Amino acid sequence: MSIQMPPAHPFDDDKLKEECGIFGVLGVTDAANFVALGLHALQHRGQEAGGIVCHHPERGFNSARRFGYVRDNFTKQSLMETLPGPLAIGHVRYSTAGAKGPAQIRDVQPFFGEFSMGGAAIAHNGNITNAVALRKELIERGSIFQSGSDSECIIHLMARSLQRTIPERMEDALRRVEGAFSIVAMTRTKMIGVRDPLGVRPLVLGQIADGWVLSSETCALDIIGAKFVREIEPGEMVVVSDKGVESHFPFRRQLPRFCIFEHVYFSRPDSIIGGRSVYENRRQIGVELAKESPVDADLVCPVPDSGTPAAIGFSQQSGIPYAMGIIRNQYMGRTFIEPTEQIRNMGVRLKLNVNRALIQGKRVILVDDSVVRGTTSRKIKEMILDAGAAEVHFRIASPPTAWPCFYGVDTPQREKLLAATMSEDEMRDHLQVDSLRFISLDGLYRAVGEAQGRNAKCPQYCDACFSGEYPVAPSDMIENGFQLKAAE
Amino acid sequence: MSIQMPPAHPFDDDKLKEECGIFGVLGVTDAANFVALGLHALQHRGQEAGGIVCHHPERGFNSARRFGYVRDNFTKQSLMETLPGPLAIGHVRYSTAGAKGPAQIRDVQPFFGEFSMGGAAIAHNGNITNAVALRKELIERGSIFQSGSDSECIIHLMARSLQRTIPERMEDALRRVEGAFSIVAMTRTKMIGVRDPLGVRPLVLGQIADGWVLSSETCALDIIGAKFVREIEPGEMVVVSDKGVESHFPFRRQLPRFCIFEHVYFSRPDSIIGGRSVYENRRQIGVELAKESPVDADLVCPVPDSGTPAAIGFSQQSGIPYAMGIIRNQYMGRTFIEPTEQIRNMGVRLKLNVNRALIQGKRVILVDDSVVRGTTSRKIKEMILDAGAAEVHFRIASPPTAWPCFYGVDTPQREKLLAATMSEDEMRDHLQVDSLRFISLDGLYRAVGEAQGRNAKCPQYCDACFSGEYPVAPSDMIENGFQLKAAE
Amino acid sequence: MSIQMPPAHPFDDDKLKEECGIFGVLGVTDAANFVALGLHALQHRGQEAGGIVCHHPERGFNSARRFGYVRDNFTKQSLMETLPGPLAIGHVRYSTAGAKGPAQIRDVQPFFGEFSMGGAAIAHNGNITNAVALRKELIERGSIFQSGSDSECIIHLMARSLQRTIPERMEDALRRVEGAFSIVAMTRTKMIGVRDPLGVRPLVLGQIADGWVLSSETCALDIIGAKFVREIEPGEMVVVSDKGVESHFPFRRQLPRFCIFEHVYFSRPDSIIGGRSVYENRRQIGVELAKESPVDADLVCPVPDSGTPAAIGFSQQSGIPYAMGIIRNQYMGRTFIEPTEQIRNMGVRLKLNVNRALIQGKRVILVDDSVVRGTTSRKIKEMILDAGAAEVHFRIASPPTAWPCFYGVDTPQREKLLAATMSEDEMRDHLQVDSLRFISLDGLYRAVGEAQGRNAKCPQYCDACFSGEYPVAPSDMIENGFQLKAAE
Amino acid sequence: MSIQMPPAHPFDDDKLKEECGIFGVLGVTDAANFVALGLHALQHRGQEAGGIVCHHPERGFNSARRFGYVRDNFTKQSLMETLPGPLAIGHVRYSTAGAKGPAQIRDVQPFFGEFSMGGAAIAHNGNITNAVALRKELIERGSIFQSGSDSECIIHLMARSLQRTIPERMEDALRRVEGAFSIVAMTRTKMIGVRDPLGVRPLVLGQIADGWVLSSETCALDIIGAKFVREIEPGEMVVVSDKGVESHFPFRRQLPRFCIFEHVYFSRPDSIIGGRSVYENRRQIGVELAKESPVDADLVCPVPDSGTPAAIGFSQQSGIPYAMGIIRNQYMGRTFIEPTEQIRNMGVRLKLNVNRALIQGKRVILVDDSVVRGTTSRKIKEMILDAGAAEVHFRIASPPTAWPCFYGVDTPQREKLLAATMSEDEMRDHLQVDSLRFISLDGLYRAVGEAQGRNAKCPQYCDACFSGEYPVAPSDMIENGFQLKAAE
Repeated sequence: MSIQMPPAHPFDDDKLKEECGIFGVLGVTDAANFVALGLHALQHRGQEAGGIVCHHPERGFNSARRFGYVRDNFTKQSLMETLPGPLAIGHVRYSTAGAKGPAQIRDVQPFFGEFSMGGAAIAHNGNITNAVALRKELIERGSIFQSGSDSECIIHLMARSLQRTIPERMEDALRRVEGAFSIVAMTRTKMIGVRDPLGVRPLVLGQIADGWVLSSETCALDIIGAKFVREIEPGEMVVVSDKGVESHFPFRRQLPRFCIFEHVYFSRPDSIIGGRSVYENRRQIGVELAKESPVDADLVCPVPDSGTPAAIGFSQQSGIPYAMGIIRNQYMGRTFIEPTEQIRNMGVRLKLNVNRALIQGKRVILVDDSVVRGTTSRKIKEMILDAGAAEVHFRIASPPTAWPCFYGVDTPQREKLLAATMSEDEMRDHLQVDSLRFISLDGLYRAVGEAQGRNAKCPQYCDACFSGEYPVAPSDMIENGFQLKAAE
Repeated sequence: MSIQMPPAHPFDDDKLKEECGIFGVLGVTDAANFVALGLHALQHRGQEAGGIVCHHPERGFNSARRFGYVRDNFTKQSLMETLPGPLAIGHVRYSTAGAKGPAQIRDVQPFFGEFSMGGAAIAHNGNITNAVALRKELIERGSIFQSGSDSECIIHLMARSLQRTIPERMEDALRRVEGAFSIVAMTRTKMIGVRDPLGVRPLVLGQIADGWVLSSETCALDIIGAKFVREIEPGEMVVVSDKGVESHFPFRRQLPRFCIFEHVYFSRPDSIIGGRSVYENRRQIGVELAKESPVDADLVCPVPDSGTPAAIGFSQQSGIPYAMGIIRNQYMGRTFIEPTEQIRNMGVRLKLNVNRALIQGKRVILVDDSVVRGTTSRKIKEMILDAGAAEVHFRIASPPTAWPCFYGVDTPQREKLLAATMSEDEMRDHLQVDSLRFISLDGLYRAVGEAQGRNAKCPQYCDACFSGEYPVAPSDMIENGFQLKAAE
Repeated sequence: MSIQMPPAHPFDDDKLKEECGIFGVLGVTDAANFVALGLHALQHRGQEAGGIVCHHPERGFNSARRFGYVRDNFTKQSLMETLPGPLAIGHVRYSTAGAKGPAQIRDVQPFFGEFSMGGAAIAHNGNITNAVALRKELIERGSIFQSGSDSECIIHLMARSLQRTIPERMEDALRRVEGAFSIVAMTRTKMIGVRDPLGVRPLVLGQIADGWVLSSETCALDIIGAKFVREIEPGEMVVVSDKGVESHFPFRRQLPRFCIFEHVYFSRPDSIIGGRSVYENRRQIGVELAKESPVDADLVCPVPDSGTPAAIGFSQQSGIPYAMGIIRNQYMGRTFIEPTEQIRNMGVRLKLNVNRALIQGKRVILVDDSVVRGTTSRKIKEMILDAGAAEVHFRIASPPTAWPCFYGVDTPQREKLLAATMSEDEMRDHLQVDSLRFISLDGLYRAVGEAQGRNAKCPQYCDACFSGEYPVAPSDMIENGFQLKAAE
Repeated sequence: MSIQMPPAHPFDDDKLKEECGIFGVLGVTDAANFVALGLHALQHRGQEAGGIVCHHPERGFNSARRFGYVRDNFTKQSLMETLPGPLAIGHVRYSTAGAKGPAQIRDVQPFFGEFSMGGAAIAHNGNITNAVALRKELIERGSIFQSGSDSECIIHLMARSLQRTIPERMEDALRRVEGAFSIVAMTRTKMIGVRDPLGVRPLVLGQIADGWVLSSETCALDIIGAKFVREIEPGEMVVVSDKGVESHFPFRRQLPRFCIFEHVYFSRPDSIIGGRSVYENRRQIGVELAKESPVDADLVCPVPDSGTPAAIGFSQQSGIPYAMGIIRNQYMGRTFIEPTEQIRNMGVRLKLNVNRALIQGKRVILVDDSVVRGTTSRKIKEMILDAGAAEVHFRIASPPTAWPCFYGVDTPQREKLLAATMSEDEMRDHLQVDSLRFISLDGLYRAVGEAQGRNAKCPQYCDACFSGEYPVAPSDMIENGFQLKAAE
């Protein structure tokens, strides 16, 4: 069934979209209630659908998968009563890699498999870059896939493993898998957390009373009142049971390459990554941007809501007053009918409105987090000029996004990325603004705490979307004709 | 049917709630589509339900009334196709005065009546303070009420008027009515707008191509690209047809008393009232507050989202850095299941989270728009302290709310208002914060442009909720035992 | 909202449709549950919508009105819990007189009105033949109608009555009303039952424990285990309270004219009318028909399901074996998509299938209850011939339906009635069957117990649909141009 | 999700329930529309859920699976438009073998699997008696099951087959399978039909224009106007493509054992099995029953609706008049709320009502199709006696049901079958009726055309539910402790 989902952010169609959030709890009464809360706090990582699997000693495995927001589904007592037990994991998703056609409930995670030693469920954030090849191989051997999701490969690899325990089978399976993966999985008695060797996607461990929590971000620990314990390390697998947490390192050691875009946009500003506040990192990006690309103006306005911390930082560094020049309609949801040409052309007004009396006659600096296709930047510029602004200057809190992500983020094809085909100056002319500046890659690294900037030989983060340097070869895509950046 | 509606603001249960937004369009193709957009822009004035009535020369009157958000109902093509014609009016509401029990669709406006000279529909923002007495009188004469709404009196009074035209009948009816009312009404060919003699509630006139628009606020003109023409004046009735706008003044002239709380909280910050930006007025409240009640601290944080403009103003006046110390979950909606004591106690965390890394060890000024019951102020204080703040100072962008509103705002009974029973110092002790200061009534008047402050003999605004001085005697309530403020 | 309702009978579009069933209970715990059961038993009298109003000493009046079957709405605990108290009345309806456009929930009865002496609700089976004139008069005096239903006039007339009690006001109102009406109404403490002076529509009184029941038919007494007490007499008003049943006769006495079509088709075969089993009356019609119009054949087959009793009687009288030659699909509901010409042409097969092996080579007598437009008779004939029948003989258990009903039955306009424009022989040729015979009007009267047949000077029943003799002048229709039968 | 489904027959909880109907069409435009119609005609074989899979040359495989009636789901244009192409198969089901807990959409057939040579879908009527063992073996080899259904084994066996084409893989798979199976399957271009070697479940071939049809029963050919071609033979596999129909016999030849209960109850009376009308067979059962067990009485009444043909036969043979003594409420659906003890006790009245005026003082013969638990027979007897019947005689159109079915019919555990623990006389005493007689096994065989009755050495039908002689050993059940009948 095709479902039109409400966009999460005002210009969702012109943003990169994180594909998943994962969360699990072991050792509390009615764990699924906690998982629902955790997924609600992670909703920004995936708005299309959500699922929970749980286990109860007498009532066995139960699951529910639904399209739509966590708050609209996993708040109904009638549903939650069907999800009993002290162990549960959950998943919110945007959409799966390679899905064609309308969304299908069978693609919604967690995936469940029954093995000879018992059942297991698995929830995955990331993307498997050799999934097409793996799937072909598995089908040839007689596996039947339930979904179009790349993540399902993992559970079939586990089903065919010759190992005796589920954690061992998972290790077996993950050694065949390439790409980015943070995983929360469960058996009848254990919860398992894994991060890929590069640690591209986040995963943290928390504690609540006598129970344990795994979560994509710390903000979801806060919502249930859990204490942050530590991040799961790149390449680490933790097996959590009522006896505590065991740690394994099943993969060949590699230097970590955490996704730098989590700092720019994906993660919630109240989360803490690598010991640093995401909000503070974003504010610092604004500070760096003001240092790198100052401009004389009257007001610094964020593009709501994601540009706000960087705009505050830019204002503080530049001394130019911060102001809410654009007001967001907080009741925005699904697309409106737009029956006449007249209405069709206003699109963006449904979501945003210019604070006309404030803007009139002013030189305005607009701070946004990124430019993807550039379509909405252009519309915002027009709204601001219509309202009588004297000048419009864009300052972007990330470098030009010139390459698609293959590690769990939904990006347009390369040709659709504005920065793939234009220089900064060409983009400025294209958007018809008075100035346009992106933060430099080094500036971004400095803002997130790398005082020396980017180490070009051995970058501290995955920044493939900016640099085109892919830390894991996207083998399915290469097979499919994708051209890597030419060696320099 | 009882419907639990999503709260509009994080602490809705501890806010005053505007009861209605009204909007009408005449002279465009498929006017109902424009009305849907206008109501969407006015959704902050009423989230429980919405309705549209329209008229088409061949297809006559049609209507639709629904619980829930405009975006979820009036965006479906199948519904909008049943609402044809060049003339339409609409209404969003919070709840009607005096309603007991669950919300009923029959209480959702616009109300429609068929008179001998044709049908008419009416949408009302405000409250009729003699509705109980009028209703009793009308029932004794044989009128049958469809709803529990005070606004329905108007249409019955019109039905019984001896006048020959609908506008004349409306004048007749409104002369029997006491209280606050901004009205948008329609016949088959005309749109009518009225404001009560004091002009308590807002109403503006706009123009779009050859058509005309009536709206509660200017932000709803912006969304459809209509041009602001002027405010309807207190005591004015405009009759809009394809021949243009006629103006009448059917009531005895009085000095206007616009609701000052529209500036503080109800209106959208991007609306313009009396030629002034609501955002700018709120920022100026922050400036006044910083002048009146300065305090030494490290950060100025808004309570999201309504405290934001005042917090910006406070920061700019005081020089203390502005920061997002509290992050709002933008996916919040209906209440979660809270099955265990443990979860039940966290309530507020579903909606807000403290930016822990930022707050820790800091002296924090929290700027909020108002204190009603005080319940959420206390919870926020606890969250901030739990996160490690060194001091918490509340600064409130309105004077103490000590009296209920009887003019179209949902306020708790007087006993439930914290300021009705405590002094400012007692409230500070009750909330257990390091300091608590409200803006003075004069400071508020200055912030909204009255350089000399409040004219105590003849106040420029309705400020009954702060002062207890009711410009229209709430006669039903007095009949029911309400004690007015003793003369001083 | 437009709702496509499932047809109740296989060829609903070619049947006359009863417009309403009414039911009320006083003096039992949770009376609304009994009313739901009673309405379920009366569902054949109206499938489009149903409503219940009830009263509880502390919780006051409550109501629910829903489109669709009783079993789908009034079986939900969440709904029924909102309908408490020892007194409740209900209504099922097909459609209201004069309704244009899609069905509206506001047209669903019971209607409720608040008078100065308290509230009252009213449910009506029948049709008011001067409703248009009454409505015009009431609107001119300032009444506002909630619905498009003729029945609403009664409650407005009551609201304007100068009498002091609700039963007296109802008498007052009903004296202004022309047409057919059986009514169940309620106040806070009383249940009222009325039949018009001719007693066109049925209404019976029953007893259950210490409580009382009013119902359109006895079959609805059976479902709740109530004892049949007696029929309400034509022109009688009963006022039922916990003190018992008071009887009034507010109208001028007239000779009764019960609707004879209730015997033919509307009433359920397990109901008892005038001391006679409806099933037995129908079987007896078959016996009369076999006497009047015998034919040599191999099988007597009913057109399911309403032709069954008459077919049994025909078989028993004629000695020709009874057989189920046509099988009804008991899962039939809404219309199917019929996307291709090929599928579109088969229509009737969705509902019925010929028992091919049985029919082949046989001379078949088909017994149906009536012929309205004749469209489905024709299709059935084709199905039977396609299946290889040697001959097809139609025997119809009612006289030719040549006139519309204005007393609460939905009939096509006169021109659409096959018998209005054709003789019996012309109809036979039109349907291309081997023979076609209707029961005579006298035969029908004999079958329902009038040994001497019809008294032409003073007919014992209302048979206007057959005879064109309308016992109450249909004044609104005459005003609207309807031509009465010319005097002979 | 748990869904309470409407019972299909008045006393569904006391009937044996067929588990499935299957239907497929190849070679027509929009085949899924035809499949929807076919499944509607087969709805009596499974009311819980339905599914359709189709294939379009450009748009590939599509599918939809829904709980509820075909008419409520597969009639929506929005859904049917997602099911394009000239080849489609479908399935209606009651419930799957071994399902625990609430119904799950993943258990709804057809099942789909993607093999290396392309996709295939499969719909199964019957039951696999070694499914538990097969499932265990497949899981040990790494297969992951999507459902709890026994039928899914087939698709996993196919996935693991070493054969090169899908039909060959299906042969391979079915040779591992024990039990009863009629199957309709499809690839991108072919439709496959199979019956197990004993031919326990029905399957017929039809033709429509240039296209081909497979169906459980002939009544579903009639609904789409398809011509009956022939029955698929026991042990036959047909492969249908646009080149025509190929026939294979992959299994070891065995003497056929068609399910005799299909004649008694499961199949629709307008279907033709083995060249004989099901209706006529049932009428003949009534004739045999009247010969074997005559009784002096006034009326022969069917227990609606399934007892009707046998009651007609009984009446014709005995000369005792046939009458509708029990009337069924045709609007019956989901269970009503039964909030008081008083209402709870009437249960059956919601569905049936006695034709009181007819029954009073009469000696009544009730003809029913079977006695399973006996609970409803008892209630009906009480209703008839309450209505004043002088005597009640039960005549049952099948022998005592003393053994559970393991071949695709939902039967209670053996202990719950009344006939498993009581003799005919004990059952009569238990039911407290004046007499109770079942047809003899030989009488039943005669009625369905075996003039010599049952061949005890080599029975012509599967009659395990009566005789306890299971033609295929129910190996999973034996493993699970089921005791076969001791050899005599």
